[in-house]
Amino acid sequence: MERTESRVGLKGVLAAVLTPMDKDLNPDHQAFAAHCQRLLAAGCHGLSVFGTTGEANSLSVDERLAALEALVESGVAPEKVLPGTGSCALTDTVRLSQAALEAGTAGALVLPPFYYKGVGDDGLFRFFAEVVERVGDDSLRLHLYHIPQMTGVDLGLPLISRLIDAYPTIVVGTKDSSGDRERIMTLCREFPDFSVLAGTETLLLETLRSGGEGCISATVNVTSRLARRVHDAHAAGKADEAEALQERLTHLRASIEAYPVIPALKQLMTRLTDDEQWRNIRPPLSGLDEKRTKDLLSNVPLAELL
Amino acid sequence: MERTESRVGLKGVLAAVLTPMDKDLNPDHQAFAAHCQRLLAAGCHGLSVFGTTGEANSLSVDERLAALEALVESGVAPEKVLPGTGSCALTDTVRLSQAALEAGTAGALVLPPFYYKGVGDDGLFRFFAEVVERVGDDSLRLHLYHIPQMTGVDLGLPLISRLIDAYPTIVVGTKDSSGDRERIMTLCREFPDFSVLAGTETLLLETLRSGGEGCISATVNVTSRLARRVHDAHAAGKADEAEALQERLTHLRASIEAYPVIPALKQLMTRLTDDEQWRNIRPPLSGLDEKRTKDLLSNVPLAELL
Repeated sequence: MERTESRVGLKGVLAAVLTPMDKDLNPDHQAFAAHCQRLLAAGCHGLSVFGTTGEANSLSVDERLAALEALVESGVAPEKVLPGTGSCALTDTVRLSQAALEAGTAGALVLPPFYYKGVGDDGLFRFFAEVVERVGDDSLRLHLYHIPQMTGVDLGLPLISRLIDAYPTIVVGTKDSSGDRERIMTLCREFPDFSVLAGTETLLLETLRSGGEGCISATVNVTSRLARRVHDAHAAGKADEAEALQERLTHLRASIEAYPVIPALKQLMTRLTDDEQWRNIRPPLSGLDEKRTKDLLSNVPLAELL
Repeated sequence: MERTESRVGLKGVLAAVLTPMDKDLNPDHQAFAAHCQRLLAAGCHGLSVFGTTGEANSLSVDERLAALEALVESGVAPEKVLPGTGSCALTDTVRLSQAALEAGTAGALVLPPFYYKGVGDDGLFRFFAEVVERVGDDSLRLHLYHIPQMTGVDLGLPLISRLIDAYPTIVVGTKDSSGDRERIMTLCREFPDFSVLAGTETLLLETLRSGGEGCISATVNVTSRLARRVHDAHAAGKADEAEALQERLTHLRASIEAYPVIPALKQLMTRLTDDEQWRNIRPPLSGLDEKRTKDLLSNVPLAELL
């Protein structure tokens, strides 16, 4: 199922990029740009910035806008960037999505509004519809971000279908972080023109084989090299090699997933870059304590990392 | 248990004030001020603006700040206002709490950061501590807003205790919207110097009798008169009268609670003010459909309302 590039945006291996923070817990723009370049050099096809892993909802809208602007100014190609623009407030999501569009990014990864629970599909549809109408630009590309364990909001298939029907050239894809393998395969099957990105590299090969576009994953901050090799082996038709690499990748991911993922990744980056600043994390998240840090560093095969 | 006024801020009957919106779904400052004055005239001791009922998390920070400024400029006494300043982002909560303080309000009603789930008490403590330290003013008064059915975050008693111990003159109270009667009574008993406000007027009399301060409730937007009579009968030591009035109030609340509360309240305000604009509601919330509106208007004893 071939799709035009303009329609689907990014595909392949995308990192849900961490946001490095200075001692006052402000985003460090320079370290952020350096990390983005590191990820691209390690094989990432794209950069999903300002998502759950990037602590985006712990940042103000102005902080997100300033960080995006600085990133593009630093020389990272905007067409490789897929910024998260989700928030609880319609006006914030509109402003962030507008800015993503103006910066020339690959699109916007948009959460459903997540404060109210049980609002029903009509309210959720109306939210996304208002975002589309208020941005008011046919070149907008939205990816629906499904992560019910954080949002408490279900983006059900009937809602996705309704949004695709209403805005077929704008609602172009989804990042599915539900961890629900069956759902991801169903999305690939039932929405063949829709870009499906799994929220974990554990499902990378299976998603690609099912017609999905790839993955956007937190752990790809440190597993890009190996994830890219899985992708490339699959693309080259080397099924056995792809499977063997996927198995290694799955093990690598599992060794990190045993810990709170965002703090663990910031700890791994501290080790990989020898820069203590990487430990900084905004509340309500907390860094790993000394014991868990020691465990992590002895259990994760560091040589396999980025 | 007498407490100094400066310590506890508002007590009695507080409305969780609705936010009227214009046809473009922007807060209507004039209608908002008029509604606030209506509630005070009907007997409310105070106004809890920009909470769940006020669709605050559907508004941007700038929209909340502009609405607060307009409200104070309109002549509503800021010391009767308790603005919600909660958000997912530390920097937003700091900015909103700072503005509440500068406007001379009774304090700030602050949600825990609600995007991440299962972050643990250390992360939540650090969030609130950072808010206190960053605002950096001893006259700050925080009320912890517990509404786990929306936030998915538990403000447990050990965390509350730890916050009171760390900031005894700043962390002065809580609004408890859990609907958990036992928890509210336990809070009144175990934290006698802490201001406990139940999130429903159904528990108004019981909370007052247990040493709590009163209630902050959505339905008080239309039940202020009756709620105030319960409060006053209790204050005058008229136990039987207070109980009879509480029973009427509980029935009145129940007749509204049978519907999605915020849309139902906006519908009731439409009826009470004869102003169709009251129907407007920001997505992801939706207005009541025609059938439910008809049901609501025939089941709620309109003559009992504000």
